[in-house]
Amino acid sequence: MTAPNRSTLWGRILVDELAKGGLEAVCLAPGSRSTPLTVAFSEQPDIEVYSHLDERSAAFFALGRARRNGESTALVCTSGTAAANFHPAVIEADRARVPLLVLTADRPPELRDSGANQTIDQRRLYGNAVRWNADLPEPNANERTVRSLRTTAARALSETHGVPPGPVHLNCPFPKPLEPTPVSDAIPERFVETLAGSGREDAFVETSSATQTPDSDVIDAVARTLATADRPLIVGGPSDPEELSAIEPETVVDVAARVGAPILADPLSSLRFGLHQRVTDAEAPGNSSTDTRDDRPLVYGGYDSYVDALPAPDTVLRFGASPTSKSLRHALRDAEARQFLIDPAGGWREATFTATDLVSGAPSAVFERLRTTLEERETNATDDSWLSKFADAEARHWSVRNRATTVDSLESDPFEGAILASVLDHAPDPATVFVSNSMPIRDADRFGRPREAELTLLANRGASGIDGITSTALGAASATDDPLVLVTGDLAFYHDSNGLLAVGRCDVDATIVLLDNDGGGIFHKLPIEEFDPPFTDQFKTPHGLDFEALAEFYGLAFEQVEPAAFEDAYRRSLESTGTQILSVSFDSDRSHDRRRALKDRTRDGLASDRR
Amino acid sequence: MTAPNRSTLWGRILVDELAKGGLEAVCLAPGSRSTPLTVAFSEQPDIEVYSHLDERSAAFFALGRARRNGESTALVCTSGTAAANFHPAVIEADRARVPLLVLTADRPPELRDSGANQTIDQRRLYGNAVRWNADLPEPNANERTVRSLRTTAARALSETHGVPPGPVHLNCPFPKPLEPTPVSDAIPERFVETLAGSGREDAFVETSSATQTPDSDVIDAVARTLATADRPLIVGGPSDPEELSAIEPETVVDVAARVGAPILADPLSSLRFGLHQRVTDAEAPGNSSTDTRDDRPLVYGGYDSYVDALPAPDTVLRFGASPTSKSLRHALRDAEARQFLIDPAGGWREATFTATDLVSGAPSAVFERLRTTLEERETNATDDSWLSKFADAEARHWSVRNRATTVDSLESDPFEGAILASVLDHAPDPATVFVSNSMPIRDADRFGRPREAELTLLANRGASGIDGITSTALGAASATDDPLVLVTGDLAFYHDSNGLLAVGRCDVDATIVLLDNDGGGIFHKLPIEEFDPPFTDQFKTPHGLDFEALAEFYGLAFEQVEPAAFEDAYRRSLESTGTQILSVSFDSDRSHDRRRALKDRTRDGLASDRR
Repeated sequence: MTAPNRSTLWGRILVDELAKGGLEAVCLAPGSRSTPLTVAFSEQPDIEVYSHLDERSAAFFALGRARRNGESTALVCTSGTAAANFHPAVIEADRARVPLLVLTADRPPELRDSGANQTIDQRRLYGNAVRWNADLPEPNANERTVRSLRTTAARALSETHGVPPGPVHLNCPFPKPLEPTPVSDAIPERFVETLAGSGREDAFVETSSATQTPDSDVIDAVARTLATADRPLIVGGPSDPEELSAIEPETVVDVAARVGAPILADPLSSLRFGLHQRVTDAEAPGNSSTDTRDDRPLVYGGYDSYVDALPAPDTVLRFGASPTSKSLRHALRDAEARQFLIDPAGGWREATFTATDLVSGAPSAVFERLRTTLEERETNATDDSWLSKFADAEARHWSVRNRATTVDSLESDPFEGAILASVLDHAPDPATVFVSNSMPIRDADRFGRPREAELTLLANRGASGIDGITSTALGAASATDDPLVLVTGDLAFYHDSNGLLAVGRCDVDATIVLLDNDGGGIFHKLPIEEFDPPFTDQFKTPHGLDFEALAEFYGLAFEQVEPAAFEDAYRRSLESTGTQILSVSFDSDRSHDRRRALKDRTRDGLASDRR
Repeated sequence: MTAPNRSTLWGRILVDELAKGGLEAVCLAPGSRSTPLTVAFSEQPDIEVYSHLDERSAAFFALGRARRNGESTALVCTSGTAAANFHPAVIEADRARVPLLVLTADRPPELRDSGANQTIDQRRLYGNAVRWNADLPEPNANERTVRSLRTTAARALSETHGVPPGPVHLNCPFPKPLEPTPVSDAIPERFVETLAGSGREDAFVETSSATQTPDSDVIDAVARTLATADRPLIVGGPSDPEELSAIEPETVVDVAARVGAPILADPLSSLRFGLHQRVTDAEAPGNSSTDTRDDRPLVYGGYDSYVDALPAPDTVLRFGASPTSKSLRHALRDAEARQFLIDPAGGWREATFTATDLVSGAPSAVFERLRTTLEERETNATDDSWLSKFADAEARHWSVRNRATTVDSLESDPFEGAILASVLDHAPDPATVFVSNSMPIRDADRFGRPREAELTLLANRGASGIDGITSTALGAASATDDPLVLVTGDLAFYHDSNGLLAVGRCDVDATIVLLDNDGGGIFHKLPIEEFDPPFTDQFKTPHGLDFEALAEFYGLAFEQVEPAAFEDAYRRSLESTGTQILSVSFDSDRSHDRRRALKDRTRDGLASDRR
C-alpha cells in the first residue's frame, strides 16, 4: 500500500483492512476532516457507499441496513458536532444489539481544547453505549503503528459482532494534507516493502467468533422441567439481527410440539411469520372459521387480547428482548411460574424481575439442544385443555379482528389497527416491513396475524425512540431485494423528514404508510388526558402539517387514502415501482376506543365459552 | 408546596426553585416520562414555555435563546434517545460558553439495563461537555431529600452561569404515576409544613457570582507594554454571551485610542457594530471616499483582505474566542509579538500557540482597569504610520467591496459575499443577524462593514457545525424584540429543516436569506476539488432540492431572488411582517473566484500605494 501522504495512506490502509474483513457498506456524510476516509471508501470497489447530508439520518440508515442483514455497516463523519448527531442511532444499536462501526474524523490531538475551529473532545463520545472504542494514533508510516492500525481494523469489525453485537467507535485524527496531494518524503520507500506497508493478501488478522454453547446440565434441567410441566409456555421476544438469522423456527416449533407449549410470537421475533407454522395455513387471513383440535396452531399472535384472561403458565421459556405486549409482560410477571430466560450475552432483559433461571447461550443453540434432548425422552402428555384454550382464544381474536376490518366496518368504525392488519396480511412474500414505535408497533403486535409468508418485521425497539424511523427503514431496504413497507405515525415522520432524501440519493424504494393523527396519539387514554392544559399543547401536540408538500419537496408520490380504501391503494402501491406515500388520517382517540372495544369483544367471548 | 403524588411534587418543587432562581424560558419536547416536569412548567406563569417536536431542534432553539440574551434556557425531554438528540447543541453550548440547563426525564434506576422499554443509561450522557451533572434521587417527600432538590435547582442554574458559563445536565428519574393523579398517603401532611415542604418565600438558596478581577501587577505590565509599543494591536474575537453584554465597547476604544492601537473586530465580537465607532460614521455604507487622517477609525473590519500584507504588530492584546479570519489567525501566528490573551476562565483559546501571556480576568474588567491605568500615565506617541496603514487598507477594502456590490456589478459578477454585505449594511437598527457556518460567516467577516447600528451578529462558532442553524436563529429571535435575519446555506437549511416548525409553533419571525449553491460550496478551491471522483458525489454533494416546496410545507412565504435584486427584496421583507424566505442561487465556484479577485484588488492597491 502506498499513498501520496500519511493521512491518505492511513485512510487507505484502514479501509483496505475493513474491506478484507468483510465490511460491505458505509454511510458517508460530507466534511473536510474526513477526507482521507471518504477518498479511501470511494476508491474501494468492494464496499457500497451511501452518501447522506444529515449525520443523524445517516446513522439511522446504517443502523437499518445492519439490522436487516446482520452485517456491520460503517459510518463516517467529519469532526465536531457531526459526530454527536450519530449518538441517537448509536444508542439504539447498543440496546438492539446491531453491529455498527462508527468512524469519526478528528483534528490532531494538540488542537483539542485549544479554541481551534470545529474541534471538540470526541474521545468516548458515546459513553458506554459502544462495545469498544479507540482513539487512533496519528497517521505515521512506521511499521508498528501501521500494524496496529491493520489489527485495530480487524478488531473493531470483530467487536461489532461480539457477544452481544453492537456499535464500536474509532476516533481518527488526521493532519493535513487531507487530500491525496503528494508531499515530499511522506512515505519512506522501504516502508512499502514491509509487512505493515504491503499488508497480507487476505485480512491482516482473520477473526472468528465462538458459539455461545449452553451448559448440558442446564439443558437437561430445562428439558425435564418443560416435559413435566402442566402448562408450559414459550415466549419469543423481539430478535436481535444475529439471532434472527441464526435461529431455526422449525426447531422451536418442534420443541413446542413435543412438550405441548403454545408459542407466543412477538411480531419482531422470527416466529410470527414464516413457513414453520404451516399448521395454521388452513386459517388463511379473512377466514374466520375456528381451528379444529387436529390442526391446532402452535404459534400465537393475538395473545395481547387474551393472555391475561387464560390460566397462568407454570413453566415459561423465554428468549429475545422484552415482549412488545404489555398484557403479556404483566401476565408473565403475575404468573408464579418457573421462568427460564435464554440470552446469548448473559443479558438480563427482563424488567419485571420474575425470571427464575438465566440460561446463558445462543437461543438457536439452546433450542437445537433441547430438541435433541427431548427426542431422547418421553414427555408427559400435556393437559389437552391448555393448548385448546389458546387455540380457541386465538381463533376468536382473529375472528373479531376480521369482522372489524371489512370495508363496511371500516367505513363506519375506522381505526389505525386495521391498517396494520392490512399491511401485514397483504404484504408480498417475501417482504420487509418496518414499523414505527408508539402505536404502529403495538397495532402490528395486536393485529398482525401469523402467516406462512416470509415477512421480516423490524422496528427500533432497543430504545424505542420515534427518531430516525424513516432512515432506519430505508437503510433496511438497502440491504435486501424484498419490497419494503414502512408504517409510521405523523410525529415520527416529521422527526426524520430529512431521512426521505435517501430515497433518491441512496436508490432505495418503499411503500410508506403514514398514519396521520395529527400529533401524539399515544397520549390519549393515558391519565394525562384528564389534565388539559397541558394535554393538548404539550402532549397531544397537534401540528396541522400537510405532508403532501413534504412529499413534493422530496419528489415522492403522495396519496391521501380513506381507511376503507386503504387495501386497494396498498395493493396498487406494491405493484408499482418507486416510492409512494399513502397517508391515512385517523382520530387517535377513536382508534383507542376501537382497540379497547375489540379486545373486550374477544374476552367477552372467552368468558361465555367458559360458562 | 403540595401535590397529589410524589413525582408531581418533585416536578413542582424543581420548577418552583428554577423560577425563583430566575429561569425565564424552557423548551419542552413531548413525552410520557417527562410528564411531571411538563406539567410543572405549564403551571408556572413566570417561565415562558416553547413546545417542540424534534429534540435536536428544541435544543438548538434553547441554545439560540440563551446565546442572544445570556440567560439560561432549560430543556426537557423524555427518556431514551430523545436525550441524545440534545447532544449536538450541548456540545455547541459547551464550546461557545452558553448557559443551558438540560433536564432529562428518566425511568426509575432499577429499570436501567433491565431490558425495559425506552430505557438507556442517561447518566453522564454528555460526557465532559457539561459544567456539572447530577443524577437526581427518586422523588420522595422527606425533608433532607427535598432540601437537596431545592438546593440542586439553585446550584444547577448557578453552574450554567459559572466561569465559563455552559450547559448543566440534571437527570431526573420519575416513578408512576407521572400525571397529577391523586394517590393515597403520597405526601405526609406534616411534610408540607416543613421548610423543605414549603420552601422559602424567595429562592431556597440565593446565589451570586464573583467578578473575575485581573491581577493589578499584570494590568500594570500590560498597560506599560501597550503604551510603549511601536505597533500595538487589539483583536476582539467572537464574544461569549456573557461578555457580549458585560463589555463596554467604548472602554476598548478608549484604551485603543490612548495607545494608538487599531482594533480588529471580529464580526461576532461586540466591536464590529455599535455606537462606539462614531468616528467611522463619516464613512457611511455606499460611500467609497477614503478616510482622512483626522477621522481615522479605530475599529477595523476588512482586515481579512490585508492584515498579512501590513507590517506585523509588536504587541497584541486579544480577547474572545479564536478569530473567524484565517488570514488574521495566521498573521498573529507569524508575528513575533508579545501576545496577551485575556480570558475570564483561564481558557487557552489560541490554537496557533503563539500567546506569550495568559491574562486571567473578565475582558470587561481588564479593559476597565487598563483604561484607568492608562489615564494615569503618559503614553508614547505611536508611530503615526502604523494607524495610517490600517486606515488606508481598510478604506481600500470597502471601496473595492462597494464597487463589487453595485447592481451593475452583481448583474455581471454575482457572488455570495455581496448578500452578506447587503444584509449587514441594510439591517435595521437594532437587529439581530444570525449567520450560518461554512461560507456565510466568512463572508460576513469579509464583507460586513463596521456600522454604528446596534447589530447583534451571532453564529454557532463554538464547534462550528452546520447543524441546528435555523433553530438557533429562531431561538435567538425569541429572546429579543429586534427583527431577526438569518443567513444560511442550502446544506445547513436542509439539515435543520425541522427547525422551521418553530416559526408557527413558537411565534417567532425572521427574514431567512437562503444562499443556495446546491451543495457544499466550501469544498470548492480546496485541494479535494482536483480529485473527482469523489469530489462531486462526496464533497460537493449536489442535491437539487427546491426549497419552495419546503417553505410550503411549513406555510412560509418564499421568494426566489436574483443577486442584483436582492437588496430590494430584502428591504421589502424587513418592512413586512411574518417570516419570508429569500432564496438566492449562486455558483459557489464563481463566488470563490470573485472573493479571491476582490482580495487581490485590495492588496494590489496597497502594494502600489507603497511604491
